[in-house]
Amino acid sequence: MLQLPEQVTIKEVGPRDGLQNEAKRIETEDKVAWIDHLSESGLSYIEISSFVHPKWIPQLADAKEVAEAIKRHPEITYAALVPNMKGLERAIDTEIDEVSIFMSSSETHNKKNINKSIEDTYPVLKEVVEGAKQADKSVRGYVSTVFGCPYDGHVPVEQVLHVCDRLFEMGIDELSLGDTIGVADPNQVDRVLEEVNKRFSFDRIAMHFHNTRGMALANVLVSLQHGVTIFDGALGGLGGCPYAKGASGNLATDDLVHMLNQMGIDTGIRQDKLLVAASYIQSKLDKTLPSHQMQVTNRSS
Amino acid sequence: MLQLPEQVTIKEVGPRDGLQNEAKRIETEDKVAWIDHLSESGLSYIEISSFVHPKWIPQLADAKEVAEAIKRHPEITYAALVPNMKGLERAIDTEIDEVSIFMSSSETHNKKNINKSIEDTYPVLKEVVEGAKQADKSVRGYVSTVFGCPYDGHVPVEQVLHVCDRLFEMGIDELSLGDTIGVADPNQVDRVLEEVNKRFSFDRIAMHFHNTRGMALANVLVSLQHGVTIFDGALGGLGGCPYAKGASGNLATDDLVHMLNQMGIDTGIRQDKLLVAASYIQSKLDKTLPSHQMQVTNRSS
Repeated sequence: MLQLPEQVTIKEVGPRDGLQNEAKRIETEDKVAWIDHLSESGLSYIEISSFVHPKWIPQLADAKEVAEAIKRHPEITYAALVPNMKGLERAIDTEIDEVSIFMSSSETHNKKNINKSIEDTYPVLKEVVEGAKQADKSVRGYVSTVFGCPYDGHVPVEQVLHVCDRLFEMGIDELSLGDTIGVADPNQVDRVLEEVNKRFSFDRIAMHFHNTRGMALANVLVSLQHGVTIFDGALGGLGGCPYAKGASGNLATDDLVHMLNQMGIDTGIRQDKLLVAASYIQSKLDKTLPSHQMQVTNRSS
Repeated sequence: MLQLPEQVTIKEVGPRDGLQNEAKRIETEDKVAWIDHLSESGLSYIEISSFVHPKWIPQLADAKEVAEAIKRHPEITYAALVPNMKGLERAIDTEIDEVSIFMSSSETHNKKNINKSIEDTYPVLKEVVEGAKQADKSVRGYVSTVFGCPYDGHVPVEQVLHVCDRLFEMGIDELSLGDTIGVADPNQVDRVLEEVNKRFSFDRIAMHFHNTRGMALANVLVSLQHGVTIFDGALGGLGGCPYAKGASGNLATDDLVHMLNQMGIDTGIRQDKLLVAASYIQSKLDKTLPSHQMQVTNRSS
């Protein structure tokens, strides 16, 4: 009955989206060792840090040092977030493989996050995309609050699609649709993807779910049924939810890989190696990681 | 694209399946007050305890006192588990509405749980079902380890269906298929339900998922797509997993209700009242409840 893709690509965003929401500062060498562990797991994509101004996210102030110290595998794409031309220059200096840009689909979240209206954000990103392309970098776009905004509430799908259009027009290669606060339910994902599918090809669309309300894997399932084959995850569920401290945040890569591997969908990722990487970063934090796989691992050992 | 039922019945098994796996002994009056809270939430079915021998499950030794002290709402079915004729007599004395019987679909789990082979379990249950019917009680059957056994591993679907056949032949009214250790993935649920559907009508089949590996709500989604409309839950994810202490156990009723309500599927249950009941029982335990809704509630308050 279920019609699902045979193969899925998982993009690890834990070193950026996970760590940026962790209170405890992780040493540069520990980040590097962690990313090197991740590189051994079969992942084909790792977002390693963010070249935002250090005062915004002190945890990621060492983006350059991390980018230069990790052991790069030629078959893995190492990416980093950049907010503007300054960030792009720093990123290009490190010979990162891909840059990612970000904005929200809701006005208030965009203003609080980027300090600009949606309209005023486009020219900044356009400049970055053009600069990245000139430097021969591929570009990934993140759109936040696709399924709901902590300030504006409901976000109309037309508004989301308009932002997506504008980003694709700039020349980005792939778009990641984010359920930033983990409110999407499978019916909503179903409806949104039906609209997305009318406009864009799913080989350029990734889904980025948060598990705040426990629905992330159900949302993955309905996305798979639509033909989505690219998903973001943060190892161990690292990061938490900035709007409900201590609650689940990013969909855990290990929970996602576990489900897909069980289902016989090829991810190319070895769960045992992922859990080694998860245990490593957990040992550097003052908490246990919230993913289901790590909860079971912690309790069994 | 998703074809889903408009209405779903949720059966609360927390006071039995949840509490039996909690180490801390809860006072009888606290159980009663908790069940009274649950009765206010719109639930139509609550399994309140188990009439097993007190030495097996000391936590539920007060089944009779609980059954007699709770405030019964005429529109709610109050049920209790019974393992044998002795338990049935005690249950009938309390004028419980429905009794449930249980066995495993895997040989070793059945032996460890019931101390009998599967074949030797049937006559014991048959006697109970006949006795219950004579007393005008409806009977629910639980089949455990449907998607995997902690001892035997894979459980062939034919073996599960054979157990189901035998139980329906005894005259039970409904069957709850249990993923006792939380290993089912959506593809497996899809395959099993396809076989179940060939043999039985879904108006007599309930799904009982555990969230040990985080896949419970994804499994609910695929079950809904097959037309299943009855699901078991334990409030707050009470109970944990007996095979990995501290990890998630039963699918949390509040997580299930939250998802279904968000999806526009009618459950008849008020989430706010459920969370009042969850906060109440949490205050009597030495831990926070692991459900996503309670994690968000605890962190926000």
